Amino acid sequence: MLWIKNLARISQTTSSSVGNVFRNPESYTLSSRFCTALQKQQVTDTVQAKEDVVNALEPQRYDGLAPTKEGEKPRVLVLGSGWAGCRVLKGIDTSIYDVVCVSPRNHMVFTPLLASTCVGTLEFRSVAEPISRIQPAISREPGSYYFLANCSKLDADNHEVHCETVTEGSSTLKPWKFKIAYDKLVLACGAEASTFGINGVLENAIFLREVHHAQEIRRKLLLNLMLSEVPGIGEDEKKRLLHCVVVGGGPTGVEFSGELSDFIMKDVRQRYSHVKDDIRVTLIEARDILSSFDDRLRHYAIKQLNKSGVKLVRGIVKEVKPQKLILDDGTEVPYGPLVWSTGVGPSSFVRSLDFPKDPGGRIGIDEWMRVPSVQDVFAIGDCSGYLESTGKSTLPALAQVAEREGKYLANLFNVMGKAGGGRANSAKEMELGEPFVYKHLGSMATIGRYKALVDLRESKEGKGISMAGFLSWFIWRSAYLTRVVSWRNRFYVAINWLTTFVFGRDISRI
Amino acid sequence: MLWIKNLARISQTTSSSVGNVFRNPESYTLSSRFCTALQKQQVTDTVQAKEDVVNALEPQRYDGLAPTKEGEKPRVLVLGSGWAGCRVLKGIDTSIYDVVCVSPRNHMVFTPLLASTCVGTLEFRSVAEPISRIQPAISREPGSYYFLANCSKLDADNHEVHCETVTEGSSTLKPWKFKIAYDKLVLACGAEASTFGINGVLENAIFLREVHHAQEIRRKLLLNLMLSEVPGIGEDEKKRLLHCVVVGGGPTGVEFSGELSDFIMKDVRQRYSHVKDDIRVTLIEARDILSSFDDRLRHYAIKQLNKSGVKLVRGIVKEVKPQKLILDDGTEVPYGPLVWSTGVGPSSFVRSLDFPKDPGGRIGIDEWMRVPSVQDVFAIGDCSGYLESTGKSTLPALAQVAEREGKYLANLFNVMGKAGGGRANSAKEMELGEPFVYKHLGSMATIGRYKALVDLRESKEGKGISMAGFLSWFIWRSAYLTRVVSWRNRFYVAINWLTTFVFGRDISRI
Repeated sequence: MLWIKNLARISQTTSSSVGNVFRNPESYTLSSRFCTALQKQQVTDTVQAKEDVVNALEPQRYDGLAPTKEGEKPRVLVLGSGWAGCRVLKGIDTSIYDVVCVSPRNHMVFTPLLASTCVGTLEFRSVAEPISRIQPAISREPGSYYFLANCSKLDADNHEVHCETVTEGSSTLKPWKFKIAYDKLVLACGAEASTFGINGVLENAIFLREVHHAQEIRRKLLLNLMLSEVPGIGEDEKKRLLHCVVVGGGPTGVEFSGELSDFIMKDVRQRYSHVKDDIRVTLIEARDILSSFDDRLRHYAIKQLNKSGVKLVRGIVKEVKPQKLILDDGTEVPYGPLVWSTGVGPSSFVRSLDFPKDPGGRIGIDEWMRVPSVQDVFAIGDCSGYLESTGKSTLPALAQVAEREGKYLANLFNVMGKAGGGRANSAKEMELGEPFVYKHLGSMATIGRYKALVDLRESKEGKGISMAGFLSWFIWRSAYLTRVVSWRNRFYVAINWLTTFVFGRDISRI
Repeated sequence: MLWIKNLARISQTTSSSVGNVFRNPESYTLSSRFCTALQKQQVTDTVQAKEDVVNALEPQRYDGLAPTKEGEKPRVLVLGSGWAGCRVLKGIDTSIYDVVCVSPRNHMVFTPLLASTCVGTLEFRSVAEPISRIQPAISREPGSYYFLANCSKLDADNHEVHCETVTEGSSTLKPWKFKIAYDKLVLACGAEASTFGINGVLENAIFLREVHHAQEIRRKLLLNLMLSEVPGIGEDEKKRLLHCVVVGGGPTGVEFSGELSDFIMKDVRQRYSHVKDDIRVTLIEARDILSSFDDRLRHYAIKQLNKSGVKLVRGIVKEVKPQKLILDDGTEVPYGPLVWSTGVGPSSFVRSLDFPKDPGGRIGIDEWMRVPSVQDVFAIGDCSGYLESTGKSTLPALAQVAEREGKYLANLFNVMGKAGGGRANSAKEMELGEPFVYKHLGSMATIGRYKALVDLRESKEGKGISMAGFLSWFIWRSAYLTRVVSWRNRFYVAINWLTTFVFGRDISRI
């Protein structure tokens, strides 16, 4: 890697002393700002002798974004590109701040519609929103960036994070490390799917949280449909391939089951008539499905799912083997595609952070989204929860919570920035105004066959409208269509719904 | 694999003698037609003792589709799902024939528009047409099938082919073998991309023939754009990542280069402003680009490509290393994404067939698309070429040739079927009517920036219209829009073009 050597040499000449290499902003900003071919040549000639000394002294030295200086805008660094991270990015006033986003994916996933993409009701790209479309400053402003990377370490005392790029197996590029100094840091890195320590889940089940999960489910479903038609397959094996099992009866699991049964009733019957009678859907849940909904709605959902041919099984999964899962009563359930949606828990990155946590292991925050033990660090979305000292219980891991927190925080930053508190360590004594208050707007879930549940009460005990059926389904679609971030995707979601209705779902396995 | 054992046992009981197992249609049709759980149980009990004998005698025995019987429709088996195979499938009268298609992909790729999908001008699914949409009988008729499989052996004397299923690495399923007996066989299995034996092409370059190739190119392009923005990357490495190299100056290579330069000028400039000046496109061709076109058009194309910033290099690639390729004059060309489109040659399956070949190594055919040395075997598209004995030279490997041959052959089959010659060995003495005559309708190629070439002459020396520019581009788009097979995809191609114009290309890396 010639360029690594070159950089080492260049940094050496521009630094005042070897010991200060990383602290010196000049050696630490984007190499493109100071490194030219000419310089490189000069440097190569002059510092050849010192190279070994530098390498020996600083094996960990690497590039990054230096702390902002007077005259530059303060920098907000957002880790993550989910609902929370993207909402804060969107809301920040980029005339006050530069924004930098670090995330292993360059888009936000519109999760409420992700289940629809697994069977082709919607297309994958219709539910993926590039970050630069959400916050255009990222591609325009010289000090705003999106970096394809993971955060590996957080150094709150020095106001900097350590990151590592995400490259790809097929690429010949090795990942490299870099640092980013921040004025404000937003931890919005989300949660991980829970496996409850059950053996074989990670290896055999597919989660439903990212676009690539939906792609995998769709490819597997179509593969199994095709293989089950091929001569030479046994009846048992065919039944297994065509047995779609969903574990987890929350909104995601139920919506996916509903989409699957729609796909089976409309498209599989038409396009795979040779095997249409062998395909089945089973939904396994340890307790009640859709437990956050009104009992009346829950019973309606159960009735509808039964009508659609979805078999509801109450059971606890004990182990997942490559072609079958074992319930705690010993029942063996052979499966083809297996989708796992049993909720989320703290990610390994969150667990590794040395901050006080909430009772569930999330990053502990106060009512202004601050991590109180350090300066200028905030946490929102699924990765954070109220500290016990706030006297509040942690909010559920929902898109609407994350989005509302992101909106609140962006506004808080803008107020702070206007009052001169944008820079690192400059808002210590600042009055932050009203704390965040969450007001639940209600829950919705589709259950297939043009039916949905809409529960507009603030809590399960509260009063308000709760309804189910076709009208709810229409409200569900309309509501989400208006929530889609960009006009491009709003247009495509509507077009996808139209073509699914007119032409059916596409079964090309690409 | 319990079901394999069970099948072995069942076949044993239904066969008249062990030696006749495979010939007996009852043991040989789809297992679902005769194998029930009840039978299985009875059989398991009765034939346990004979099992070892069967296994020893018949290690190769497997299931499949038996020869058609009186009262059943004759069966046309099509190997491949490209332009030729799909056109013959589409044209066959399914009231006369059952159709079976065997192919490793369940869709046809609309290849003239594939280059547009690499940068997001069109979406992948808009250019993929499921076989069952082209010939609906495949999903409706009890005797018509699509099988996800490759053909491993052709036994023309016995009118049967041996196939093996295509499963997936991630799946836990092992591929299995089966046989299909045919009345008419159509070899339409296409050609392979040529590498001319150059080292490193297969490992490092991406072809542009399938949807997954286009997906790989798009993912790699977006990955490299993002990585080149990350701090810590050297100038040389950044330049390499952003150097898109295309080898091969035929229509595919030129169209892809044009699409790339459109993407760079419109979308990269807007969305990746930090690195927009570092991205470059180089097109390497050993001879003249677009050699099949009129000289005037070629010069126009060269001028336009130069204007768009595409660097044309005349050279022969000697070797492809992981991050750079070497030309025969010793020049080293570092590359990020490398696309290889230097034409096609016979596939390994075609080379393995023991038929007389045309001078280029393709399956030799006469003017009725027959493989003359055997009965009821036909070959069309890129895998076939005229035998020298016909006195004709092989037609070029073009979509329009393949499609025309498919149409001709479907019509020939329909005429034969109506005259009672549909069954195997029943058309030996039949008068086949007019031989196939190919009339070239002209060539078209886009070159980016709303410009295209249209050459409507029958040959390079012939007379007729040849034009270039915006009007040609409009003709190009209109012509292909009308050629798209299904209304669904025609609609989506138009919608994709519209949204690309209005919103730009999508850069979500999914």
